Amino acid sequence: MKIGFLQFAPVLGDLRATMHRIDSLLQENMEGCDLLVLPELCNSGYNFQSYEQAWETSEPIEDSIFVRYLINKCRERNLHVVSGFNERDRDTLYNSAILVGPHGLIGTYRKLHLFLNEKDFFRPGNQGVPVFDIGSCIIGMLICFDWTFPEAWRIAALKGADIICHPSNLVLPGLAQRGVPIHALLNRLYIVTANRIGAERDLSFTGSSIIANPRGDLLCQASPIKAEVGIAEIDIGLARDKQITDRNDLFKDRRPEEYSLLTEPNPFGRGSGRTGHGK
Amino acid sequence: MKIGFLQFAPVLGDLRATMHRIDSLLQENMEGCDLLVLPELCNSGYNFQSYEQAWETSEPIEDSIFVRYLINKCRERNLHVVSGFNERDRDTLYNSAILVGPHGLIGTYRKLHLFLNEKDFFRPGNQGVPVFDIGSCIIGMLICFDWTFPEAWRIAALKGADIICHPSNLVLPGLAQRGVPIHALLNRLYIVTANRIGAERDLSFTGSSIIANPRGDLLCQASPIKAEVGIAEIDIGLARDKQITDRNDLFKDRRPEEYSLLTEPNPFGRGSGRTGHGK
Repeated sequence: MKIGFLQFAPVLGDLRATMHRIDSLLQENMEGCDLLVLPELCNSGYNFQSYEQAWETSEPIEDSIFVRYLINKCRERNLHVVSGFNERDRDTLYNSAILVGPHGLIGTYRKLHLFLNEKDFFRPGNQGVPVFDIGSCIIGMLICFDWTFPEAWRIAALKGADIICHPSNLVLPGLAQRGVPIHALLNRLYIVTANRIGAERDLSFTGSSIIANPRGDLLCQASPIKAEVGIAEIDIGLARDKQITDRNDLFKDRRPEEYSLLTEPNPFGRGSGRTGHGK
Repeated sequence: MKIGFLQFAPVLGDLRATMHRIDSLLQENMEGCDLLVLPELCNSGYNFQSYEQAWETSEPIEDSIFVRYLINKCRERNLHVVSGFNERDRDTLYNSAILVGPHGLIGTYRKLHLFLNEKDFFRPGNQGVPVFDIGSCIIGMLICFDWTFPEAWRIAALKGADIICHPSNLVLPGLAQRGVPIHALLNRLYIVTANRIGAERDLSFTGSSIIANPRGDLLCQASPIKAEVGIAEIDIGLARDKQITDRNDLFKDRRPEEYSLLTEPNPFGRGSGRTGHGK
C-alpha cells in the first residue's frame, strides 16, 4: 500500500484556484498511491481577515463543491483522500477533516484543539477522535495543533488506527516534525503530516510535510517551501504488530487502572522524616 | 535551581562497590546541585541470573543500607536524590525509585511497565504515578521503559510535576533520548534521564543520560560510555507556565470529555455513499 501527501498552498477565498493547484500536482506520477492527505482548511485557506470571510469560504459537507471534486478524483484514480475542510454545519463552523473514497464521503473529524485565532472562527470539535475502516486499513484523523496532545494520538491508536492523517497549516518550523515521529513510535502506527507552504498576510507556513513509520523513522520529508507530492510504500502489518519485544505488548502492557489523577492516600507511610506529600 | 544526574555502572550484587563509585563521582564539582538522579536498580544491579540473586540484592526501604547512605549524602550536601532501588516489601520485589532529602525518605514510585525479564523478578507497580512537593519544586518519578507510555508522563504533569526524574538502565541506543525531550515538550516540564553505562552478562547499557527542558531542548547530554556527572541550571517558572501562546494553555485546552474510547454512534450520518464505519 502507498500513502502520500500533497504539499501546496491553498488559495485563501478562491476554491477554484485551489482545485486548479491540486489538479496540477495530481499530474505528477502518483506511483499507485492509495491514500493521499491534503493540508488543513484546504477548501478555504487559513488566515481569515474576519468572521465573514471564514463563513463565506466554508461549505456544508453535503453540498460542497470541494467534496464532490475530491470524490471525483478518488473515482478517477481509485484513491482515498483526507483533506482539511472549513465545515459549515447550520450556523456553526468547524475546522474539520474529511475522508472520501471512490464511493463518496466516508467520515469526518472536527479539530479538538484550536490554535490562537482559530478560536474566533470555529467551534472546537465535538465528535471525539473517530476512526474509519476503509478495508485496506483503519484511518484516524487529527489536525495541525492537535499534535501537541498525546491523548488524541493514543485514543486513535487504541481504537485501531493504522494510519493517522494529519492535515496541517503549521507555522512553527520543525517542532511538529520532531514530535510527530515520536507519536508514531509510541503508538506504532503511520502518520502523514500534510503541511502547507506559502504565506497569508502575516503568517508563513513551514512545509516540510512528513510520513513517519511505526518505528519513528521518516519515510519521506518535503521541502519547507516547494509544492510537492510525497509518497511512501507502507506495511500495514507493522502498524498492527504491537508486540515490541518477546514479552512486551505496547497496549497490553498499559496500566489504565494506575493512570489515575485522583488524590489517594500514599501507601508509603512507613518512613520517618517524610517531609513531602504524595499528591 | 540546579539538577543533575550521576551516570555510572552500579555493581551487580556488590552494594559496597556501588557506593564507592558514587562517592568517587560526588568528589567532582557539583556546582551547588539541588537534585541528583541516579540510575535504575542502583542498589542491586540489573541483569539477575536468578530470582535468588534479585531477592538477595533487594532491600526493604525502612531497613536499607543504601537509603541511609543516600540520606547521609543529602544531609552533607543539602541535596535531594532520586535513585532506582530494588525494593523488597515483605515477600514481593518492586523495581522502584526512591526520593530522599536531608531529612530522610520523601517518597517512592514503583515501575508500572516492566521490560522483558523484569517480569520474572518484579511485581508491576501498584502506587500509580505519585508526585512529591519538596518545597522548591514538585517531583515525579518514572523508570526506564515507562518512557514508552505517554499516559505516565501526562499523569505526572497533570498532578503538577515540574521535574520528572527518570532512573534508567536503557539498552537500546538513542530511542529514549529522542522520545524523552518530546515528553518534556508536550508536558512543559523538565526531565532528567539518568542512564547507566557498562555491561552485565549479555546486556550493554547505553549511557547518554540527558536533561531536557520544557521546550524540548537538551540542556545536557552525557557520553554513551563514560562515568559522568551532568548538571544544568533550570527555571521552575518555565515548567509552571503552561500558557504556550496568548490564547493556548496546554492543560486548559485539553478536551478530556472528547478523549473517549467508547464506541458511540457517529453523529455524521448525513452523507450518501458512506462506506466505512466510525468506531
